[in-house]
Amino acid sequence: MTASQQQIQLARRPQGIPVHEDFRFETIPVPEPKQGEVLVKTLYVSVDPYMRGRMQDTKSYVEPFALDKALSGGVIAEVVSDGNHLKKGDIVIGNLSWQEFSAVSESALRKIDTSLAPASAYLGILGMTGLTAYFGLLDIGRPKEGETVVVSGAAGAVGSTVGQIAKIKGARVVGIAGSDEKIDYLKQELQFDEAINYKTADDIQKALQNACPDGVDVYFDNVGGPISDAVMNLLNEFARIPVCGAISSYNAESEADDMGPRVQSKLIKTKSLMQGFIVSDYSDRFSEGAKQLAEWLKAGKLHYEETITEGFENIPDAFLGLFKGENKGKQLIKVSDPS
Amino acid sequence: MTASQQQIQLARRPQGIPVHEDFRFETIPVPEPKQGEVLVKTLYVSVDPYMRGRMQDTKSYVEPFALDKALSGGVIAEVVSDGNHLKKGDIVIGNLSWQEFSAVSESALRKIDTSLAPASAYLGILGMTGLTAYFGLLDIGRPKEGETVVVSGAAGAVGSTVGQIAKIKGARVVGIAGSDEKIDYLKQELQFDEAINYKTADDIQKALQNACPDGVDVYFDNVGGPISDAVMNLLNEFARIPVCGAISSYNAESEADDMGPRVQSKLIKTKSLMQGFIVSDYSDRFSEGAKQLAEWLKAGKLHYEETITEGFENIPDAFLGLFKGENKGKQLIKVSDPS
Repeated sequence: MTASQQQIQLARRPQGIPVHEDFRFETIPVPEPKQGEVLVKTLYVSVDPYMRGRMQDTKSYVEPFALDKALSGGVIAEVVSDGNHLKKGDIVIGNLSWQEFSAVSESALRKIDTSLAPASAYLGILGMTGLTAYFGLLDIGRPKEGETVVVSGAAGAVGSTVGQIAKIKGARVVGIAGSDEKIDYLKQELQFDEAINYKTADDIQKALQNACPDGVDVYFDNVGGPISDAVMNLLNEFARIPVCGAISSYNAESEADDMGPRVQSKLIKTKSLMQGFIVSDYSDRFSEGAKQLAEWLKAGKLHYEETITEGFENIPDAFLGLFKGENKGKQLIKVSDPS
Repeated sequence: MTASQQQIQLARRPQGIPVHEDFRFETIPVPEPKQGEVLVKTLYVSVDPYMRGRMQDTKSYVEPFALDKALSGGVIAEVVSDGNHLKKGDIVIGNLSWQEFSAVSESALRKIDTSLAPASAYLGILGMTGLTAYFGLLDIGRPKEGETVVVSGAAGAVGSTVGQIAKIKGARVVGIAGSDEKIDYLKQELQFDEAINYKTADDIQKALQNACPDGVDVYFDNVGGPISDAVMNLLNEFARIPVCGAISSYNAESEADDMGPRVQSKLIKTKSLMQGFIVSDYSDRFSEGAKQLAEWLKAGKLHYEETITEGFENIPDAFLGLFKGENKGKQLIKVSDPS
């Protein structure tokens, strides 16, 4: 008898905000590794806002997820069958299906060093989210000492890293987030200079103005929507805007749901630059970024938070929570302990 | 008795689209040149859309015009009193007040060579408009051979030069303009690959799609507004958008008059760059640009049109006409003939 396991599939393409019915749990056999493959057991699964885009069947920077097929993303796993290079017990990272066990080509896995940082950090600060913050801020934002850097989604995995790197570079950092608990975290633990709760601010425009008396030189945009509209009114000359995420518009069903003041005249008046990017644009420089992030982490200059939800069955819930701002820092799901 | 002359002043800051009442004709004395100055007679005055911004009292890239003071801009003039370096009869260019005669420091004037091109060309293709096209397209747009370049305001002074430079660089060029006469001009005389009349197109989005079957790699934006909204839906990966003008929003009285689909998610999906600029950002490279433009002009690779309105008293009308799309190519006013 073959052992069976659970897999999570895309049951249908979400309309607006994703709901449970967009996901399907399917019972499938635990696969047999073929030549060149190893069997791995899923330990941690990463859920990320960008996945919402892949659920749509539209032109984007990554292939859309296929209907009735497994969803996939960043996963930390334990090797449970010896391969040519990888050995039983090795902890690895890869882009894997949302299922409990996978048979994967060894070349698609990278062994991680859990003596440097806990395994889960490799899905966050030392992984794609840390690198997203690193390259977006330093390559597009290019903050200079004394400049004002505003970051939205500031308590999220990317945003909190952006703010800390900006502080390392000597900038004045203003974060925007959606709860008083997050604001306290940004100001007390991460030493942001100012933090604004956009949900309780009477007037987000005025709150930003007060927090940025010298205007905005860099705006790291994780959210789009009305928050970004307000920041765009405070740009200094030659401001730089890395456009990393637009979580407020990912669930818009049509253009009519995502209307705002046009940016053209603001960009001209201030001679500013806005640039969309995705971390894979920088794949040839990942080792540079990962090395620097690990150094800062070891030196105690970078802190990170994880929200770890327990249980494979809770992956959809954890994903849906991203759109309600429920997570603080990187949202992960712990599927199992290493053997 | 001192000779008198006419000067045009800003009588009040326009609300929305400027009207005649925003201007005042004032009779003033013809000034006496002081030490280091020469007296010049105005030959041609340039009117440009960016001047609308200077009529507003808001933070922008140039100082606002002062109320009850002369308006000013690019002017071609004839020296009518000998100076230390400049001689009577020299034709010069400078940023001068809208009046018939000016006493100007010699260092604020540059002598032009009217054997290379007619004097008026120095206010257009060999002046700020040509340089705006040159640097915006080549420095921000960076078109590559075979790429699709879309330019709005394509029959205007900047737009028509942008399209021609893009053709020189081997790109496929699509222009957007507002009359059939302009469309004919772009396709027949300037050899644009496609041209769209946005005023008669049933569906600007579909018209653009048909004109750009391979998507858009560079969008040189002179207009903002709904035309730009439509182009933003056709961006290819790593598209570049020099944001040069937003004539459709210059007259907006508030943000509510200039709302459109937000660009953030489009920039992310395509990893595209939008950058506002003004030609003076490139002032240290003007001689490079002017030299190249003059070479192309001499080689017959660049054509330009001028709309020349006769008479000092018609300067406000010519300026107002810019916002009705009345001009083809550079709009100038001929004030007098050289002596």
